[in-house]
Amino acid sequence: MISRRGLLTGGAVTAAGALVGCAPATDQPGTPAAPQSAPSAGTSTRAGTVATGIDRAGTPAQGVAAGTTASRTEPFHGPHQAGVATEPQAHAVFLGFDLLPDTRKEALVRLLKLLTDDAARLTQGRPALADTEPELAANPARLTCTFGFGPGLFKAAGTESPVSPLPRFTTDRLDERWSGGDLLVQVCADDNVTVAHAVRMLVKDARSFARVRWAQRGFRSATRRNLMGQIEGTGNATDLDEAVWISQGPLTGGTTLVLRRIRMALETWDAVDRTAREFTIGRRLDTGAPLTGTTERDEPDYARKNRLGFPVISEYAHIRRAHVADPALRLLRRPYNYDDGLTPEGKPDSGLLFASYQADIDQQFVPIQRMLAEGDLLNEWITTIGSAVFAIPPGCTPGTWIGEPLLT
Amino acid sequence: MISRRGLLTGGAVTAAGALVGCAPATDQPGTPAAPQSAPSAGTSTRAGTVATGIDRAGTPAQGVAAGTTASRTEPFHGPHQAGVATEPQAHAVFLGFDLLPDTRKEALVRLLKLLTDDAARLTQGRPALADTEPELAANPARLTCTFGFGPGLFKAAGTESPVSPLPRFTTDRLDERWSGGDLLVQVCADDNVTVAHAVRMLVKDARSFARVRWAQRGFRSATRRNLMGQIEGTGNATDLDEAVWISQGPLTGGTTLVLRRIRMALETWDAVDRTAREFTIGRRLDTGAPLTGTTERDEPDYARKNRLGFPVISEYAHIRRAHVADPALRLLRRPYNYDDGLTPEGKPDSGLLFASYQADIDQQFVPIQRMLAEGDLLNEWITTIGSAVFAIPPGCTPGTWIGEPLLT
Ligand code: HEM
Ligand code: HEM
Repeated sequence: MISRRGLLTGGAVTAAGALVGCAPATDQPGTPAAPQSAPSAGTSTRAGTVATGIDRAGTPAQGVAAGTTASRTEPFHGPHQAGVATEPQAHAVFLGFDLLPDTRKEALVRLLKLLTDDAARLTQGRPALADTEPELAANPARLTCTFGFGPGLFKAAGTESPVSPLPRFTTDRLDERWSGGDLLVQVCADDNVTVAHAVRMLVKDARSFARVRWAQRGFRSATRRNLMGQIEGTGNATDLDEAVWISQGPLTGGTTLVLRRIRMALETWDAVDRTAREFTIGRRLDTGAPLTGTTERDEPDYARKNRLGFPVISEYAHIRRAHVADPALRLLRRPYNYDDGLTPEGKPDSGLLFASYQADIDQQFVPIQRMLAEGDLLNEWITTIGSAVFAIPPGCTPGTWIGEPLLT
Repeated sequence: MISRRGLLTGGAVTAAGALVGCAPATDQPGTPAAPQSAPSAGTSTRAGTVATGIDRAGTPAQGVAAGTTASRTEPFHGPHQAGVATEPQAHAVFLGFDLLPDTRKEALVRLLKLLTDDAARLTQGRPALADTEPELAANPARLTCTFGFGPGLFKAAGTESPVSPLPRFTTDRLDERWSGGDLLVQVCADDNVTVAHAVRMLVKDARSFARVRWAQRGFRSATRRNLMGQIEGTGNATDLDEAVWISQGPLTGGTTLVLRRIRMALETWDAVDRTAREFTIGRRLDTGAPLTGTTERDEPDYARKNRLGFPVISEYAHIRRAHVADPALRLLRRPYNYDDGLTPEGKPDSGLLFASYQADIDQQFVPIQRMLAEGDLLNEWITTIGSAVFAIPPGCTPGTWIGEPLLT
C-alpha cells in the first residue's frame, strides 16, 4: 500500500499545488482556472448558463433532478427585503445567531455590510467575495436572504429595541435550543444545494462577530399541504401595506417576524378520524373549503348553525379562533414543514416552522396566539417548542446596507 | 380563560366527533368526507388534480413553491425496481430497519406483501390502504420506493445471503449508528412532503416487524453539483445490463446497493485553492471536463504527461483511482448530499450519501474502494462514517411482491 504520508509531504494542498503548477503551459487548452462568471440577472429571469452549459449524456441515471425554475432570480434591492412577500421557495434554513460579547455597534455595521454584500451577490447568481465554491453561486434558484434583528442586537448597538420577547402562552413548552437569538438570517431557495452554499458563505462571514445558536431547516410542498395533510395559506393577509409593512419610524418598509417551532404529534393525529380533523381546523381536507362552503376561497360563514343549534365552524376550531375581521390585523404566514427523522423514543420529530410576518407583534400576533392558546382544538396535537422574534429592517438600495436606518 | 380539560371531556377526538356528527345532514352541501380519489396515472404522466383543483388567490405569498413536475409518476411494476435507473429525484430518505427477533420467514412474507402494496399505490398517486393523509398521496412527484435486503434478512428467512458485509478499508471510521441494517427502504421524490408521507406510511406498516435503525435524508441539485462544488455522475456506468442488473439466479433483474455515509471536511476543503481541488479530482470545477480535455464528456487521457514528465491526471487523482476500463465493471452512482446543520463543535455536518448500484459488489465496488482507500487525494477531506450493503431484488408484476423469488 502507498504511504499517504509520504505522498502528501507538506500536506496534500501544497503537494498538489506544486505538481499541477507546471501543467497549464503545455497541457491545458481552453478554460482558464478563473471562476465562470454568472450573469447578473434582473427580476425573476433565468440566470441560464448553469443548466445549459453542460454537455449532458442521455444515460438514465445522469440527468438532473426536478425543477426547471432552478436558475431564476428574485430581486435583492427594493423598499422591502425579499423573502417575505416572495412566493415561498421550496426550501428554507432559518439561522439564529448570538452576537459575540464584543460585537458592538461598529462591529455590527461591519457585519451587516458584509452580509448585505453577500446577499446582494448570491441572490443574483454571483459568487460572494472570496466564495469558496463559486460554481454553486451560479444557480440562484430564487434564492432570498432575509435579515432580522432580535432584542439583543439592538441592545448591543445601544439602541432601543422595537421588538421584545413574547409573553408566555400557557401552551408553550419552549426549549432554549430553539429559542431566542440576536440576529436572524433566513435563507430560502428552490434548490437545497443553493441554500446550503449560501448558508455556508453567510455563516463564514458572520464567524468573527457571532456564533450560530440554532439552525432550522424546512421545506414546502408544491401543493401547499403540511405534514398533517392540510392546505395552508388560505386565510393569509392580502393587504400587505396595511398588515405587514411598517409605515413609520426607522423600520418603515420593514416588518417583524415571529418564528415558532411547533411539533406535531403525528402519531396521535393519525388516530383521529377525518370528520374530527376537519372539525378541528374548520376546513375540509380535500379542497381546503370552510365547513360552510365548497371551494377553498369561499368565505367561512361563522354564524351558520347546524340542526342542534351548534355553530358549523366550532367556537374552538382553529380558523375561527385565529380569525380577525380587520384585514389590517391579519398575519402573513409563510411556514415551512420540518422533519428531523425520529425522536429517541421513535416518534416522528416533525412539525411546522411557523413564520409569521406582521407590522405589529403586540397588535396582531399576540392576540391571535392568545386566542389559540386558550381554546384551539388543534392544541391537542401541537406543541410550541421554540420561539423567537425579530425586527425585519426594510430593504436597501445599491450602496446601502440592511439595517442602516436602524444603526446610524 | 376557557378550561381545555372541560371542553375536551373524554378527549378532543371524541368531543369533536360527537359534535360534528350531527352536522352533515343540514349543513354540508357538496363534497362528501371521503378522500378524493387520485387518478392512477401511467408512466411519467401528470397525475394532475392536486395542483389544479385548488382555487388559488393571486396574493404574493400564497402561491406554490417551485416545480411543475410535481405530479408526475414513475412506473412501479417492471423487471427492475424503480429508484435505481430512474432519473434521480431531488429528495431521498434511506431507511435502514432491524428486524424484530421473531420476524422469520412467514412474517417477512407478510411484511413484504404489505410494503409492496404500499409502494404500488403511493408511487402511482393513490393512498396506501388505511392511509391517514390520503391527500398527501395525490402528489406522487415521481415517487419511487426501492427495497433492499441485508445479510440479516436472509438469515432470518433461513436462506443463504447473496451479500455480505464489506471488508474493512483503512480509511473507514464507521459509526454503528449509520451502519448495517436488515432491510432497506429507499424513498425518493421531487417533493419533500411526498417523501415524508411515504416514509410514514411505510414505517407504520413495518412497525410490527421491524424498527428503524437509521434514517438518512439527502438532496440533489438540478445542477448535479455536490457540496464541494463538483459536478457528479460523469463517469457513471452506462451499460446497465452489463454493470448493474444481475442476469442469473434468484436475483435476476435485481442488483446490489452499497450505501456509504461520507462526511466532507468542508471547513478545511475551503482553504484549498482551485488548482489543487481540480488536481485532487482530475476534473475541472467549472465544466467538469477532465484536466486533459475541454468538455465534460471528453474522455480523460490518463497517459498524457506534462513538461516535467508527470501525468496531467495524477496517479492519485480521484477519477483515475476510481476508473476501470471495462464498462461491465463500472458502478452506477446515485448519490445524495446530506446536510444536518452543524456538529457540536460547530463544523458543518455534511457530506455525501454515496449510493452505488452494481451487479457484483466484490468484483466492482470493493476493488475501486480499495484503490481509493490506498491513495485517493480526496481522502484528506472525506471520511466514511457509515456503511451498509443490500441485495436489491428484481421488480415485480401486479399480483406478485418484491422479494418473492428470493423468499419462496
Ligand atoms: C402546527 C401548527 C399549525 C397548523 C398545522 C396550522 C394550520 C392551519 C390551517 C390548516 C389553516 C387553514 C388554512 C389557512 O388559512 O392557512 C390555518 C389558518 C390560520 N392559522 Fe394556523 N396552524 C398552525 C399554527 C398557527 C399559529 C401558531 C398561528 C398564530 C399564532 C396560526 C394562525 C392562523 C391564522 C391567522 C389562520 C387564518 C385564519 C383565518 O382564516 O382568518 N396558526 N392554520
Ligand atoms: C464524498 C465522497 C466523494 C466525492 C465528493 C466524489 C466525487 C467524484 C467526482 C467529482 C467525480 C468525477 C465526476 C463523476 O464521474 O461523477 C467522481 C468520479 C468517480 N467516483 Fe467519486 N466521489 C466520492 C466518493 C467515491 C467513492 C466512495 C467511490 C467508490 C468506492 C467513488 C467512485 C467514483 C467512480 C467510479 C468515479 C468515476 C471514475 C471514472 O471516470 O471512471 N467515489 N467522484
